[in-house]
Formats: sequence, C-alpha cells, structure tokens
Amino acid sequence: MNECTYNKQVEKWDVFEASVKGHSAGNPFIDYTIEGIFKSKNELKKVDGFYDGDGIYKVRFMPSFEEEYQFEITGSFAEEPYRGSFEAVAPSEENHGPVRVANTYHFAYEDGTPYYSIGTTCYVWSLQSEQLQKQTLKTLEENTFNKMRFCIFPKHYDYNLNEPISYPYEGNPCDSSVLTKENFLEYMGSAPGNDWDFKRFNPKHFQMFEERVKDLMDLGIEADIIVMHPYDRWGFSEMDAECDDLYWNYVIARLSAYRNVWWSLANEYDLFPKKTTEDWERYASIICEKDAYNHLRSIHNCKPFYDYSRPWITHCSIQRQDIYKTGELVDEWRIRYKKPIIIDEIAYEGNIQHGWGNISGKEMVRRFWETTCRGGYAGHGETYMHPEDILWWSHGGQLHGDSPERFRFLLRIMKETPGMGLVPMKASWDEVASTVERTIPGESGYYLYYYGFNRPSFREYYFDDVHEYQAEIIDTWNMTIENAGIFKGRFKIELPGHEYMAVRIRKE
Amino acid sequence: MNECTYNKQVEKWDVFEASVKGHSAGNPFIDYTIEGIFKSKNELKKVDGFYDGDGIYKVRFMPSFEEEYQFEITGSFAEEPYRGSFEAVAPSEENHGPVRVANTYHFAYEDGTPYYSIGTTCYVWSLQSEQLQKQTLKTLEENTFNKMRFCIFPKHYDYNLNEPISYPYEGNPCDSSVLTKENFLEYMGSAPGNDWDFKRFNPKHFQMFEERVKDLMDLGIEADIIVMHPYDRWGFSEMDAECDDLYWNYVIARLSAYRNVWWSLANEYDLFPKKTTEDWERYASIICEKDAYNHLRSIHNCKPFYDYSRPWITHCSIQRQDIYKTGELVDEWRIRYKKPIIIDEIAYEGNIQHGWGNISGKEMVRRFWETTCRGGYAGHGETYMHPEDILWWSHGGQLHGDSPERFRFLLRIMKETPGMGLVPMKASWDEVASTVERTIPGESGYYLYYYGFNRPSFREYYFDDVHEYQAEIIDTWNMTIENAGIFKGRFKIELPGHEYMAVRIRKE
Repeated sequence: MNECTYNKQVEKWDVFEASVKGHSAGNPFIDYTIEGIFKSKNELKKVDGFYDGDGIYKVRFMPSFEEEYQFEITGSFAEEPYRGSFEAVAPSEENHGPVRVANTYHFAYEDGTPYYSIGTTCYVWSLQSEQLQKQTLKTLEENTFNKMRFCIFPKHYDYNLNEPISYPYEGNPCDSSVLTKENFLEYMGSAPGNDWDFKRFNPKHFQMFEERVKDLMDLGIEADIIVMHPYDRWGFSEMDAECDDLYWNYVIARLSAYRNVWWSLANEYDLFPKKTTEDWERYASIICEKDAYNHLRSIHNCKPFYDYSRPWITHCSIQRQDIYKTGELVDEWRIRYKKPIIIDEIAYEGNIQHGWGNISGKEMVRRFWETTCRGGYAGHGETYMHPEDILWWSHGGQLHGDSPERFRFLLRIMKETPGMGLVPMKASWDEVASTVERTIPGESGYYLYYYGFNRPSFREYYFDDVHEYQAEIIDTWNMTIENAGIFKGRFKIELPGHEYMAVRIRKE
Repeated sequence: MNECTYNKQVEKWDVFEASVKGHSAGNPFIDYTIEGIFKSKNELKKVDGFYDGDGIYKVRFMPSFEEEYQFEITGSFAEEPYRGSFEAVAPSEENHGPVRVANTYHFAYEDGTPYYSIGTTCYVWSLQSEQLQKQTLKTLEENTFNKMRFCIFPKHYDYNLNEPISYPYEGNPCDSSVLTKENFLEYMGSAPGNDWDFKRFNPKHFQMFEERVKDLMDLGIEADIIVMHPYDRWGFSEMDAECDDLYWNYVIARLSAYRNVWWSLANEYDLFPKKTTEDWERYASIICEKDAYNHLRSIHNCKPFYDYSRPWITHCSIQRQDIYKTGELVDEWRIRYKKPIIIDEIAYEGNIQHGWGNISGKEMVRRFWETTCRGGYAGHGETYMHPEDILWWSHGGQLHGDSPERFRFLLRIMKETPGMGLVPMKASWDEVASTVERTIPGESGYYLYYYGFNRPSFREYYFDDVHEYQAEIIDTWNMTIENAGIFKGRFKIELPGHEYMAVRIRKE
C-alpha cells in the first residue's frame, strides 16, 4: 500500500490535494500514469495527477458541492490504487468559486456574485526575487485589481534581460551575459547554448508558481495564466508538438484545481514564428478535455485577432488594434462575438519609448470608463522608466502611476449597478451611455452616461413623464459623486465643463 | 453716354471696379444684363456685372498681370456700352494673389509663396453689431488665423436666435419673438410669416459683406465663403431653382474679383431637406462658368462626404465623421482624393452642451498637429458658454480658449519647412512622421515626428551613416524648441516623457 497524505476536510472550490509516493526510476514525467477519480452525491470527475519530484506524485481536485467525496487514485505510478474520502465544507466568506461567463457579456463567480474585471499585467512577477514578489503582493493588497495576467515561462524582451529565479525544465540556459538593449532581438526564440530536457519538468518552478496563484487567490485576484508566449530566448516557445502537449497536460494537471485560474493560451499568439492555428486548436482541445472545471479560456493577439468565435473561447482577450480607438470598439466586438470583451492590453500608463507603454494616467482611466460604459472590461499595466528596470508590467514591484487609485472608484460604481454588468445604450452621438439589462428593454431604471474628453456645461435628459429620477454627477478623475437632485420629465443637469465627467441616473 | 467711375490704377490681384448708371425701372436684378470684357496683352476675360441699387450697376475685375487693361461694359442696362482703360501695377508687399492648389495636397498664393492654412470659423460674424464686428477684426489681427469660414445668409440655430443686422433680400422676416432654446428646431427652413422677394436683392447686405471680405483681405485672411447653409428660418435654404441660380450669379458677379475668396458651396450640404446632388452640381457649374479667376471650390459635409473626387472640387473641406479619429484619417483621405485635405470642422474648443463644441484647447492643438504632420490642414472654432451668447464660432468677438496662441507656433514651424507642405512618411507604428517632398524619395533632409498623447522618454532615429543631422525637441503645447544636438548614424534623443512633444530633424 502506498503512503498517501491529504486533508480530511476542504472548502468547496478550494484545492484538495493528495500526495502519494510512486516510482521514480526512468523519467517519471512520462514513464508512468496517475489519475484520480472523485465521486460524491452530485459529481463524478476524473483528473490527471502529476509527478512533483522526489518520488512524490500528486492529485488535485476542486470540489463543487458541500458533501462527502470518495476518491480513488490509480495508474502505473504505483503497484496499487489508493482510496480515501474527505468532506467538502461550506466556503469561507471570500471564496465565491471560479469565475464564469454570465449574461453573455459579463462574469460572475460560481456562487452568483457578479465579477467586474479590473485586470493588471505583471508578466513575470513570479520569477523575480522573493523580495520583489513580496512587494508585488503588498502592492496588490493595497490596490483593487481583481485579475492578474502572468506567464509560466520566463520572459526575454526589452527591460527583461535578467535570468528568472527558476526554469520550468531541467537543464541549463544560454549565456545571457552577451545581451544588451541593442542586441536582444537577435536572441529571440531558441538562442545558441540552451541545453534543456523538455521531457523533465522542474517541479520547484511549478511549486513556486502555484504558491503565487494561491497568494492571488487569497487576495481575491483571478490568475489569468499565460501558458505560452513568444518573448523567449530559451526555446520554450519552439518546442515540438510532443513536448508542447506534455507541457499542457502537466500544467493542467497541476493548476486546474485552483479556482482562480483562467487559461490564456498565449500572449500575442501571432508573434510565434513556428505555431499554426492547428497547434492552438490542439492545445485548446487538451484544455477542454483535461480541465475538469471549465475555467475561462482565451488567447491574446498582437495584431490580428484569433477567431474569437471558436466555441472553446469563453471571452475575448483583446489587444487594441488601433492607436486611437480602444474601448470605443467594444460595442462592435460585442455584436461580432457575443462574448465578454476584455481589452487586456489597452496600452500601459508610463513613459517608456514604446507607444504601447507611455500613455498618461488620465488617458488610461478614460479608456477604462469608455470600455466599461460600452459593456466591456479593460486591463491595466504600467511602464514607467525605473533606474533598475523594474517595471510593473513585467516585474511587479511598486506602482507609480495615477490611474490605479481611480480603478477602486470605478469598481465601486460597477458594484453599485443593479445588474450583472452594463449594456451599451443608444444615446446621443456624442455620449457613451449604458444601462443594465432588464426584462423590458429601456426599462432598467439605471443609466450611466460618460463624456470622456468632451466637456459639456450641461446636458438634457428625458426618460418618461411619470417617474422620478435621482441624478448624480460623477467626476471619474477626481473620484467624487455629487447629488444633482431628483427630476421628472425632461430635465437638465448642469456640469462643470471639465473632461472625464459621468452622470448616473437611477429611477427612484 | 453713361456716367462711369473707376480708378485708373489698381494693383495686380486687387479689385478693379467700374460704377455705371443704368435703368432702374422694373426689377433691375433680372430685367437687364450687364457684362464687362477686359483685355490686356496677356489676358482676355468676360465677367458679369450686377445691380447695386439706386440706379447704379457695377462691374468688378481682378487683373492678373501688371499691364495696361482695356475694358468694355455692355448690356441692356443702358443704351450704349462704356469703354475705358486702366493700369494694373505691381502688388504691394502683402498682396500675393489668390490661393491655388500646389503640389497636389497643398496650397500656394499665385506669386508662389506657400500658404499654410490655419482656419477658423465665425459663421455670421459679419451680420452682428458693428461693435462686435470691430472686435472680431481686432481679435483676428492679434491672432494668426489665415482663413475664415463665414456665411452670406443669416443663421438660425442654437445660440443664433437673434436677428441679423441685414437681410439679403427685400422683404420682411418671420416673427422671432416666439423663439426659444427649446423650440427653435421647429422653425427650421421657411418659418411662417416670412415675406421675401427672392428676385430683389438687398444691395446693402452685400455691400457690408464685401467690406468684411476686404477687411479680411487686408489682414491676410482668406474668406472661405459659405454661400448656402441649412440653419435657416427665413426660407433662404429652400428657394426654387430659378431664385437659387439668380443668387449664385449675383454672388459670383459681386465677389469673385476679391482675391481672397474661396467658394464653400454649402455648410453641411447633407442637412438641406430639399436639395439634391443635381442642385449642388448645377451651382458648381455656375461657379465654374462665371468665376473668371478659378477660386478654390469645395463643399462641407455634416455626415456623409460629398463626392470629393468631382473635378470641380479643388480641395476636401471635411467635417470629421468619427468622434475619436479626426486628423488621424488624413493619410487615407489624401490617398483617396489626391487633393488638399482641410478638416474645417475638427470639433471646437469650448464647453457647450454639444459634442462638436466642447473639446479642450490641448485636444484641439493635438488635432492640429496630428493633421499637419499627416500632410493636411485643420480648422479652429471656439464655443465657450457666454453670458450674452456671443460664441466665436458664430458671432466672432473675443477668444477665450487656450489653443489660438499655439497656432502661431505651429505656423512658424510650417513656415520653416523647406518645401510646399508636409508629406506623411512611413515610420514606427506609434509615431506620426512627415517629411517634405523632394526628387529623391526619403532624401528630403527634413523630418518632423509627432508623439501626441504618447509620452516616450526617448526615441531612436536612423537615416544614414554619412550625414550629420540637427535635432530639435519641440514642445507643441509650451511652444518651446530645444536644440538636442547634431547626430550621425543611429542616434537617440532624450525626451521629457510629456504629452504633445515633437522632434524636428534636419540634415546639416
């Protein structure tokens, strides 16, 4: 009989983990199988386990019901199967379950709580020094972001020439002492001198990564995991199909029991020189087959969009394609794809040389409001020049910009909407307006108008002659809400003639 | 023999005018003809004269050569023709002749001096009180605008409910005491109570208008005359074809000898409920036939563009169609129309309720630079709330905004270009770049980069390994030019990481 350790009690939507000893001869990552079957009154699920090094295999599972679970762990990893049971208990207050698509264009946690995405990006924060990782977590704790996009693989790019604290595979990296800001592009892909065994994972790398996923979970932050990306000098972006598939299976086996996981198949999928649509579709089919929990799935573009109408894609994870129109295109994309729209890359607040990383905090916040009031979600990132090249966008650390504090205010406004999310509404040509969906169109009783860079000194509104409406003037930049009064029929609201104003009107 | 008065000497490109007495019985505007034939060594031109009231007929002519002119005035207006001669002398320093299209996309005065259009709009400034007109002229004198768009007919619209100081026809207007900000739209077109004789012009109206055209000429400002517009309660926008044609012929006879005249067939041609493309084309054919000097001709849209590829249209007079992209579309329009692009309405600086009239000075100046660096020209207007509803955009008066002083700086930059205008240049995806045309492509030796709302802390440039280049950092908002040094090969310019910066690079 194997040794097996696990907790007898776990919260619903939390990670149940069983550790078992097994064979370590040969290459345990490919030579043996391990599988868990989990059974309760309401569900029956089969999941892959994985080799975690030092002769230890693990099986993870996320229960979706508060009830008794039986499990059986089988496979060639050991001589005999292991059986056991545990109790899934009520979730704690902050545990709302995984995020799901809700109401076609929006999101909610599995317990029904609306989820209004305010994302940020720190591509390789979990591969920086321990001290920097701690600082990142502290910054996240002090801010309002509820989604983080980051990578499993290390990153090679401008401002990203240092070595990561660990590698996902056994082996040795190419020599990075030759790299400079001027020549790094020549080393993209599989640079000379790499020596990796793509069939032997480094469990420590994944253990640390999972700790960070858990840290985010504890902070109420969704982990939008970028499984592949092209900013690479180690050859991780150019493995063959067999090794790619091994990697996908390993990642899914390790990570899918974490309720806050989202799958981002790739960042800038179109920049991989050697991947085809067939490859991406194959990875997607592996996720669909092996992720027992149906976590959210998308893929992020540099230039051309991936075909977001593919059935496996749960939401659009967009990089803006136009320099001047970003959130402004959300209406179009909603109509085209009938899925939630997240503009994960809407440009970053900062002042680096690249045009994708040097907009002002005001423009960033404007893009968030524009996106939100058109029924979409935007993502933040920050790229201010830093004496040690620590830029939030890749490394995490501290925030220096003006936009983050305004997202707390925006999130407050979103949380005060009566529905599951905003719906763009036909209004004047020169205003962005939204409402919330109700059974009778146009009868939501909630209206949010946003004026962006326009500076009207007043606006007129009309809904009906019967009801009273409470109007508020929102300064989205200065984060104030001013009661404008209660109105009936046709009415006029005086505005300060500044940029970035909104008006919220609710039926009494 | 008739009495005839005229000057024996006139500057080239100035207005020669002969006044003659003629029949005043019946309706002199339609019952009699009058025509002038002008002949010199280099030209032979036939122009219509017009009835100016009080038994006086006039014939105007703009000589294009410095030489002796003979003329003959004929027609049924009098029993006998009149003949005479005058001398066209060298133009004074500020008289460069009429503006022509130059180098496909640009403009130059007839003497070859480049004309870089910095327009503004005061739709009915010449129909305001004498005092206000004087103030407008003073403001123009203190500013740098070199084109003014304004109307012959009075205007009826929001902030434009007062009566004009004169009407173009004999008769009486409808009652305006009933008009309010709330109901004025119901009175658009031919409101009840108008009583006009559309076959009897009011010469005083046109005399005053011409004085204003002349005032602008003296200030070096082109008069972009809006001959028709739809913001009307007097029925001037809904006359029948016979009266329309009479009006066009009268206007052309009176105004075309002024060198600073441009013909704008209409403002927002697409808002006239009763005019068809056939009508506009007919007016255009009248101008082409009767304007002996080929003044610039265009027509301005509200929403859909007129077909700017029509051969009679000399340049595109555009109202931006997209809220977010204005000057950004100049490149496309240049390619599509192969004509100069003027975005005459790019939104106005101000704070009124309408989205077309409440952008900031910063956004206005950004749009000008964006337009300029893409090889086009932009137009200004101002709509700040005013206690007496005196808004520059319609009434003239004083300027209150932040943008006008920045146009002087922009014009200086334009005047320092070596060529006839800027040509958009392929550059990085995140910068707007232009050069000037030269025989060898890419060998102009002049480069202007604009970064708009992007805030790079530095940028890198490369032209060749051989020549030295002088680089300057231009703050388009603070109106400073800083010498960045002389560079060769690949070089880097440090920038302040602010919005609205430009870099000018010139070959040594």
